[in-house]
Amino acid sequence: MKTKIILLFLCSTLVVGANAQNSDSLMLRKIYDEALTNGQSYKNLEYLCKSIGGRLAGSPEAAKSVDFVKATMDKMGLDSVYLQPCMVPHWVRGAKEVGEIVDVNTSKHTSVSICALGGSISTVPEGITAKVVEVHSFDELAKLGRKFIEGRIVFYNRPMDPKHIETFKAYGGAVDQRYSGAMQAAKYGAVGVIVRSMTLTKDDYPHTGSMGYVDSLIKIPACAISTNGADYLSLAMQMSSGTKFFMKINSTTLADEPSFNVVGEIKGSEKPEKIIVVGGHLDSWDNGEGAHDDGAGVVQSIEVLRILKALNYKPKYTIRAVAFMNEENGLRGGKKYAELAKQNNETHIAAIESDAGGFSPRGMSMDCTLKQKQKVKQWQKLFLPYGVYDFDKNGGGADIGPLKEQGVALFELLPDSQRYFDLHHTANDTFDKINKRELELGGATLASFIYLICVNGL
Amino acid sequence: MKTKIILLFLCSTLVVGANAQNSDSLMLRKIYDEALTNGQSYKNLEYLCKSIGGRLAGSPEAAKSVDFVKATMDKMGLDSVYLQPCMVPHWVRGAKEVGEIVDVNTSKHTSVSICALGGSISTVPEGITAKVVEVHSFDELAKLGRKFIEGRIVFYNRPMDPKHIETFKAYGGAVDQRYSGAMQAAKYGAVGVIVRSMTLTKDDYPHTGSMGYVDSLIKIPACAISTNGADYLSLAMQMSSGTKFFMKINSTTLADEPSFNVVGEIKGSEKPEKIIVVGGHLDSWDNGEGAHDDGAGVVQSIEVLRILKALNYKPKYTIRAVAFMNEENGLRGGKKYAELAKQNNETHIAAIESDAGGFSPRGMSMDCTLKQKQKVKQWQKLFLPYGVYDFDKNGGGADIGPLKEQGVALFELLPDSQRYFDLHHTANDTFDKINKRELELGGATLASFIYLICVNGL
Repeated sequence: MKTKIILLFLCSTLVVGANAQNSDSLMLRKIYDEALTNGQSYKNLEYLCKSIGGRLAGSPEAAKSVDFVKATMDKMGLDSVYLQPCMVPHWVRGAKEVGEIVDVNTSKHTSVSICALGGSISTVPEGITAKVVEVHSFDELAKLGRKFIEGRIVFYNRPMDPKHIETFKAYGGAVDQRYSGAMQAAKYGAVGVIVRSMTLTKDDYPHTGSMGYVDSLIKIPACAISTNGADYLSLAMQMSSGTKFFMKINSTTLADEPSFNVVGEIKGSEKPEKIIVVGGHLDSWDNGEGAHDDGAGVVQSIEVLRILKALNYKPKYTIRAVAFMNEENGLRGGKKYAELAKQNNETHIAAIESDAGGFSPRGMSMDCTLKQKQKVKQWQKLFLPYGVYDFDKNGGGADIGPLKEQGVALFELLPDSQRYFDLHHTANDTFDKINKRELELGGATLASFIYLICVNGL
Repeated sequence: MKTKIILLFLCSTLVVGANAQNSDSLMLRKIYDEALTNGQSYKNLEYLCKSIGGRLAGSPEAAKSVDFVKATMDKMGLDSVYLQPCMVPHWVRGAKEVGEIVDVNTSKHTSVSICALGGSISTVPEGITAKVVEVHSFDELAKLGRKFIEGRIVFYNRPMDPKHIETFKAYGGAVDQRYSGAMQAAKYGAVGVIVRSMTLTKDDYPHTGSMGYVDSLIKIPACAISTNGADYLSLAMQMSSGTKFFMKINSTTLADEPSFNVVGEIKGSEKPEKIIVVGGHLDSWDNGEGAHDDGAGVVQSIEVLRILKALNYKPKYTIRAVAFMNEENGLRGGKKYAELAKQNNETHIAAIESDAGGFSPRGMSMDCTLKQKQKVKQWQKLFLPYGVYDFDKNGGGADIGPLKEQGVALFELLPDSQRYFDLHHTANDTFDKINKRELELGGATLASFIYLICVNGL
């Protein structure tokens, strides 16, 4: 009898399980269909990129983009739309930078593509010229020491490793040069820093990105050089010991500016006090249009709300889309969001970011408990028809990172990463590099993931 | 005792199995590393696209591309390189086509982007003007019948269905209009055919592609219209019942030309009589550079041989790379290859094609026995670190298709398909749309797949 009951119980559990899977599968189909037939993310991204453009924190463009996202959300009939004020740094690039390889033997100047790293001080107005020391690591720099570094420009030329399949790993293995290069070189009396651009391509686009200083050391100007420029500079140094470099950077750091995260919500029907947040960052570097980094993530997050509303889905939990401000050079928006969540005693079930480009989605990376990971992995078969298969990678996004100490499960959309660093932080990160369907598939994947959390818990 | 022996046997089998997996895994790592660090496919494709360009069968460019591939293979130190002669059709587009929407009420002519479908006859030299009938299916055409079709131009305007995740399925659901549209319309006395371009984007590029005639029916000229043009024409017809269309096509079909498949081989070390063939097609449509379709497949196939040689790998079986001629409008190369294989009593273990674009690889489709499919699926875990996960789809390639009746197992590389039909058969299928790493990852996937067949059989 007992066996029979257990068997009956098991059978009914299996049937319930199968039905749930089936209804989930039907809902995912509806979500992807809605995204691919009525998607608004591409149009919204076009506005962000072409009518506003690059929108570094503190800039007039960043302010315009806040207005645009709020107005867009206001028109969607959400349960609430609001701004979260935060102060942001305000760094301004100024006039276009000049970089020249100078052969002192022949007095020949050869122009190469450079751009200031974000946060760099300017050079003196007339620019600086100094001998160049090429290094590939901080160890090498330390070994050379003050004797060979003082009064020189340090040229960090360690490329990203093309053997990594995930390009973010290749980036992770090289970006110390960009972020810490100036601090490290200043220890030994360098007067400036040139960093090989963080990319796997060979081209003429310099890649900007944030860099840091410490108060205990003198601040020296730092620029990125395009990979073609870096190869050329390296060759020039091998050919002539008289190689110097001329750099002119015209940047300024102004006083912090008031800015905002933009938040839109669908209120939960059963447990409105529990929140699932999805977001991307609204600010971008100033040199491009911030299409893949990270206009894509912003418009996909808005699209999640649009899709769920269009399908008339009433989520149990509150679903919140956030356009975070200032990820690129301060993370003030992400920090403010977490601070307010704590202050308001909010309970976040999950935080999900899209900040790896608007390319074909392949999976979701995770930063949560093992049990939660195991639960999410069971959803893989639901996602396979959409080419989304990878639930094995670790990681969340920068903007949602500050929520981690509140014990929130973090996730990030994993798009195909091969093209990302061709464009990242360059003048080339423009709307024409976006494929409408790939962008839409990413938004649908986020919406589906949130739906599955609502229905199945975490 | 028996149990012990069985256990020992099981253990040793497991160890052997694990070691084999491990050595396979190491070899795949070497293959991908070689592709990503020393790859030649991008450079070869640049030559095909930029120095030769579009290379329709029978054209001088097709002949040049045969010479280039042969010369490239000759320099690689292969065991043999040779040409397989075949006769190919020779269709020439002639002067640029003209398409105009004509409002007979206002006499206004509005230019739209059209191009002749491959194989279409020309219009009369001065072009034709006729009333337009828009249809979405052959059923609709049949219902209208001769009364509404005779003397008119039939406009096929059924779009590809964006809800398909695999864009090739969306293509498959619409391409009957392009291939058979003229034959079907001729039945009812139409004087010409306009076909909505086979793409999921909205733009101004018309997409050419092959179309057919039957001898029993009159041949009428057929063109593709860009999707923007199609939408505009449809709207114009709704706005004014006096809408006509003017089309001028200047094509010619010349006598068949001699051409060639290009073949390169590494002779098998143990069973040279058994062959694994990998290929793409060297011909392309004339309006673009044939970058993704299918220069990519050709240079990836050559790259397979280069990688295996660079790693000093001696395959048990003969590995053959083939640049097939005339896939686009005749398949004469593919047919000739199969005919010669039969004539020479060759034994092919497997035939693998790359003809779905040089995008990030995601898997391998299969047209073989269930047992072979099950074997291949076991390799999935070896491919997962490279983002190649999909071994669940059916299909082989067009060029290798004629080998099927010889019982050969067929496979095709499955790249991400989202961008393919943005470019396919247009002026936009150019080298700048190729990402070097994505192309290289595809070549490495083919080489790895062939290595695994060599080592593990099929």
